[in-house]
Amino acid sequence: MGSSFGKLFQISTWGESHGGGVGVVVDGCPPLIPLDESDIQVDLDRRRPGQSEVTTPRNEADQAEILSGTFEGQTLGSPIAILVRNKDARPEAYNEMSEKFRPSHADYTYQAKYGTRNWQGGGRSSARETIGRVAAAAIAKKVITSQFAPDLEILPFVESIGTLRANVDTATVTREMIESNIVRTGDPDSVEAMIDLIKATRADGNSIGGVVGCVIRNVPVGLGMPVFDRLEADLAKGMMSLPATKGFEIGSGFAGTEMTGRDHNDAFRMDGERVITTSNRSGGVQGGITNGQDLVFRVAFKPTATIMTSQDTVSTSFEDTELKGRGRHDACVLPRAVPIVEAMASLVLVDHMLRQRALCGDAS
Amino acid sequence: MGSSFGKLFQISTWGESHGGGVGVVVDGCPPLIPLDESDIQVDLDRRRPGQSEVTTPRNEADQAEILSGTFEGQTLGSPIAILVRNKDARPEAYNEMSEKFRPSHADYTYQAKYGTRNWQGGGRSSARETIGRVAAAAIAKKVITSQFAPDLEILPFVESIGTLRANVDTATVTREMIESNIVRTGDPDSVEAMIDLIKATRADGNSIGGVVGCVIRNVPVGLGMPVFDRLEADLAKGMMSLPATKGFEIGSGFAGTEMTGRDHNDAFRMDGERVITTSNRSGGVQGGITNGQDLVFRVAFKPTATIMTSQDTVSTSFEDTELKGRGRHDACVLPRAVPIVEAMASLVLVDHMLRQRALCGDAS
Amino acid sequence: MGSSFGKLFQISTWGESHGGGVGVVVDGCPPLIPLDESDIQVDLDRRRPGQSEVTTPRNEADQAEILSGTFEGQTLGSPIAILVRNKDARPEAYNEMSEKFRPSHADYTYQAKYGTRNWQGGGRSSARETIGRVAAAAIAKKVITSQFAPDLEILPFVESIGTLRANVDTATVTREMIESNIVRTGDPDSVEAMIDLIKATRADGNSIGGVVGCVIRNVPVGLGMPVFDRLEADLAKGMMSLPATKGFEIGSGFAGTEMTGRDHNDAFRMDGERVITTSNRSGGVQGGITNGQDLVFRVAFKPTATIMTSQDTVSTSFEDTELKGRGRHDACVLPRAVPIVEAMASLVLVDHMLRQRALCGDAS
Amino acid sequence: MGSSFGKLFQISTWGESHGGGVGVVVDGCPPLIPLDESDIQVDLDRRRPGQSEVTTPRNEADQAEILSGTFEGQTLGSPIAILVRNKDARPEAYNEMSEKFRPSHADYTYQAKYGTRNWQGGGRSSARETIGRVAAAAIAKKVITSQFAPDLEILPFVESIGTLRANVDTATVTREMIESNIVRTGDPDSVEAMIDLIKATRADGNSIGGVVGCVIRNVPVGLGMPVFDRLEADLAKGMMSLPATKGFEIGSGFAGTEMTGRDHNDAFRMDGERVITTSNRSGGVQGGITNGQDLVFRVAFKPTATIMTSQDTVSTSFEDTELKGRGRHDACVLPRAVPIVEAMASLVLVDHMLRQRALCGDAS
Repeated sequence: MGSSFGKLFQISTWGESHGGGVGVVVDGCPPLIPLDESDIQVDLDRRRPGQSEVTTPRNEADQAEILSGTFEGQTLGSPIAILVRNKDARPEAYNEMSEKFRPSHADYTYQAKYGTRNWQGGGRSSARETIGRVAAAAIAKKVITSQFAPDLEILPFVESIGTLRANVDTATVTREMIESNIVRTGDPDSVEAMIDLIKATRADGNSIGGVVGCVIRNVPVGLGMPVFDRLEADLAKGMMSLPATKGFEIGSGFAGTEMTGRDHNDAFRMDGERVITTSNRSGGVQGGITNGQDLVFRVAFKPTATIMTSQDTVSTSFEDTELKGRGRHDACVLPRAVPIVEAMASLVLVDHMLRQRALCGDAS
Repeated sequence: MGSSFGKLFQISTWGESHGGGVGVVVDGCPPLIPLDESDIQVDLDRRRPGQSEVTTPRNEADQAEILSGTFEGQTLGSPIAILVRNKDARPEAYNEMSEKFRPSHADYTYQAKYGTRNWQGGGRSSARETIGRVAAAAIAKKVITSQFAPDLEILPFVESIGTLRANVDTATVTREMIESNIVRTGDPDSVEAMIDLIKATRADGNSIGGVVGCVIRNVPVGLGMPVFDRLEADLAKGMMSLPATKGFEIGSGFAGTEMTGRDHNDAFRMDGERVITTSNRSGGVQGGITNGQDLVFRVAFKPTATIMTSQDTVSTSFEDTELKGRGRHDACVLPRAVPIVEAMASLVLVDHMLRQRALCGDAS
Repeated sequence: MGSSFGKLFQISTWGESHGGGVGVVVDGCPPLIPLDESDIQVDLDRRRPGQSEVTTPRNEADQAEILSGTFEGQTLGSPIAILVRNKDARPEAYNEMSEKFRPSHADYTYQAKYGTRNWQGGGRSSARETIGRVAAAAIAKKVITSQFAPDLEILPFVESIGTLRANVDTATVTREMIESNIVRTGDPDSVEAMIDLIKATRADGNSIGGVVGCVIRNVPVGLGMPVFDRLEADLAKGMMSLPATKGFEIGSGFAGTEMTGRDHNDAFRMDGERVITTSNRSGGVQGGITNGQDLVFRVAFKPTATIMTSQDTVSTSFEDTELKGRGRHDACVLPRAVPIVEAMASLVLVDHMLRQRALCGDAS
Repeated sequence: MGSSFGKLFQISTWGESHGGGVGVVVDGCPPLIPLDESDIQVDLDRRRPGQSEVTTPRNEADQAEILSGTFEGQTLGSPIAILVRNKDARPEAYNEMSEKFRPSHADYTYQAKYGTRNWQGGGRSSARETIGRVAAAAIAKKVITSQFAPDLEILPFVESIGTLRANVDTATVTREMIESNIVRTGDPDSVEAMIDLIKATRADGNSIGGVVGCVIRNVPVGLGMPVFDRLEADLAKGMMSLPATKGFEIGSGFAGTEMTGRDHNDAFRMDGERVITTSNRSGGVQGGITNGQDLVFRVAFKPTATIMTSQDTVSTSFEDTELKGRGRHDACVLPRAVPIVEAMASLVLVDHMLRQRALCGDAS
């Protein structure tokens, strides 16, 4: 239980970091969408470890194989199963973890919940699980642009690392700006400092957190379902289901709580035939439904739990002990979090597009 | 679609603010739980308008009727339907809204989505909808304490109103402290200033936002499901599905993104037979699963959209116009948000308790 | 758990035969469908007891109240809650049942499952529960004919009562033929014998079973989802979820198992622009998906369990005893089963129409 | 949509007969169940083609690989992904099918629904899809016997082939009797005639249908959920979702419709401490819930659609034409249907066991 997401574009991910592999089954993808492995590989490559000097040196090729659901280069309408084999695993690096719970990891809670755990790596809590999400989202994005919103753009970016805050204008940031630098921030002036901070943190055997901001442009009006499946509720769930996330806010977020209604409300105006708002503190949703303005939200990522320092912990035989991190880990997950946030946003949007089509038919 | 919540303790709310009433069906409540209307009424009374001088003067008794699912004072295991009739509705106060979209309300998005809307009040986006959630949660809390966690306490409180921040210690705050004052803050020293701020804001025809903090104590270890149904993901969804919410964070939240792993990690120690952490920046969840520490989270509420000032908007015939708020509204939803946050937290917890029992049996 | 049906047109029924009432919440109905109580009442009147001399003399008006989800005579797209109050209940007729389990009723199994039961009538297993289904289906039928299949006709009829078999031609039977007689058979020549059989059975304090046949005409091609949600699988589930059903077959059914492929296969031919089959042993579905031919299926109803004869049973204190039926019951449920079979078929079809629209868009 | 089954023990199958393979993801399996590939292989071998002289001569080894969800020989509680590669495919045997719809196959309906189909074999409608079900069910059976009902036995058998009816006593039939003969009937006296009939049918290029009966012994009391998820409703759905099924009946089934209540009702008696019924026309369920008596049901399988005779059909360019079956097919699916019926029954039962545990805790 708990490994499926989406009501109509339903994905089920599976796999541990050590074992036969990881993957996903996508059930509910419309037929006749052009699709082959290369569509998926692009995003897996943006997610994979070892892609740059600010990510973990683990070198996982993460090659996707489509096992079902396509025929002659198009989707069939049947479940699309995707498999990525595990490679470059070094279970011996984890031997000590078989007997000690890593602080702020899922070791203890998994053991307490299930009475067992795969201690060779993070098991199911490993970020490798997100491979399935990213693969599924590559398909989702093709559905979105081919059937619902050709110009829709999902643009997450690194907004801050530690206390270093980039100056990103959500109205003008482009994918090129973001992907042109290895930290994936939208502010060229912050790139160097961010790279330096990550390197220094890693050199110190430490880790650091940060915030991913995201703007989604050209969103159709009317997505989201009152009352529990508000678009921002599903976005929040999606983002807070990502490893290491501790917070989500949309539009004015926590800062907006300090405002009065007079200053916070977004006035409506006509812009030709189109209804717009003259400000966007709502972040693109009102009453849980998109209003056609940019969707703008932020996701908080805590510092990676694995650090190369000795820390207090307890053993699996329940005695106080110490543990020092080993293995090859990201000192900062933010650069690799960008494609993952993009993936979850895609999955939420495509599902709500299909739901809206079910309820109200094709938009005229 | 979108009006159901929970996988096993499944609630379906229904109803508009103007119409026959509002209510809920709870499907999945265990049998043999003592239950009558008075159990529900207590919480409805904490939620209802007109309960104090800092809430809307609308006077809605919100009397609950249990229509099914109980027999001789106990639950049957069958669906529990609860009905609360609408009263004291003044649809004429909304006549102007039939032709104009209220800024930062759901009027425009509902109309765009559905091609229709009940303009007599907020329709389905009205906070009246939360009556169903609060009623269902009153049952959920009885299930939790009678079958799973007798000492579990869910303690939300007003942490801030506008820029006024209460000084609440989540380790010591009690329900008595919170319920002893009409703003429902956990800091006696902030009560008067908060009351004054709300009154002044209302006198000015304005509104104001704030933050609800929440601590949940004596939580069983092992609740939450990797990977999509992490406990914090479901809490985030639940909270972000509440009207007027713009943000959610758990544990260290956004502030934690500025920390390094060395400072952020929660060390494990033995406390007698029990595994504890010496700090709680995780906020009670690791890898999406409760670790037995206090669950601590925060929810951002924006200022109420309805203000008694003329604002720019557009008409339903798509022309620029102006609209001035009317009717009786909360200038600040925070005091009434406290029982609603409590309700959603209860619903998330009970569902995960049932899921854990399904998967792993009764805790030994 | 277990009181919801449908993935997109989701209904949740609630209510016991004795208690505040019975009802349904419909979540997922498209907006802008004209709807008022009279649309629902028509079908409730076809279902209600006391409607003719071959049904139970209980006189329940079963007046429906729409509590939510409509505005100015149209659906809003929000949940539609419908309430029917219980009346004419005589719980004293059931006093003996508080201490004895009625043979072939749900008394014993409910008690064993839940540790409790509402012994005043059938509780949740009462046929009164189907009121919610019939009410929801009245809405479903309006959605079907207004948005998907204007000419679709769902025509269930009584095919047999006991060993009395009507001679109904599914190709020509009409609603008028069926509704023109109180047994609701499609064969005028069988009406009198069937009425006589039911009356004689009742006079004898006995009960009798029968078969409802059903033909659905003008069904769109392409409804049904491989592999688990084949249309016939969902029809089977829907029908077998009705009280007193013991069997379901589609097309050639059990009789077809005696045939060879050469005799059983339905040849395809062109009929102008349209693909037809020259026989219909498939019953309108191939590979779980409608092929545009008539849907033809049959449902077996066992004899009513309540009979006016002393029968062996056990007491709630687990001793052998005897029990004689009391109260006012149908000696044969078949005439009233017809609108209920129609209801379940409507609910299955509308759900699959919405699912198909989600997946493939509006049919061009 | 449509490729998942089960609410708590949720399986998602995927794969076409021609393509990368077929498989299943099981989400919701309890942890600590001993499991390795050999547990699964046993049942796949009972299902596979080429296993005897009465099945298709296609020789598919159908080797299962567990990709995730186990560790050190036990389940982890995380999703179990199972992959079976496709082999021995001869797509060239299907070239003609790319241009013609096979009568009584899913070719036409898939094409009409999706606008595309994998014409190399049956695609998603192929019986190969049931590999995923059988693999998942092998796990389900281990959960059932280790956690819920150690003595539960699921015994399907071939009851009839064409008009040849075996004489099977559901009270005494054993797995040994069924598995000792290649038709898998429970009546030794019918084996030879059934084998001869299948061989003669195949020699004639024809095919033939039949009925699988099933008895399940030592079933716990209290499984099944009113009202839509009655045990027999979920069994019916499961069985009617199998390829080639046209009918389902439980207990007295269609024959019971000819009886009166006086003859049909099952009297309760005490058998020591245990409540039993002196007959079992209910087939083990009352009010949708198991009563502890044997579950007894029957499933109708139509004759295989593929026959080696020229048949009328239409082309994909919508012209009348003829088609003669080719390739290697079962002339009678019944012997291989036995393990598949067993699989679906297991999946229904385990899901309801987990649901009952969620609702009412471990049975005391």
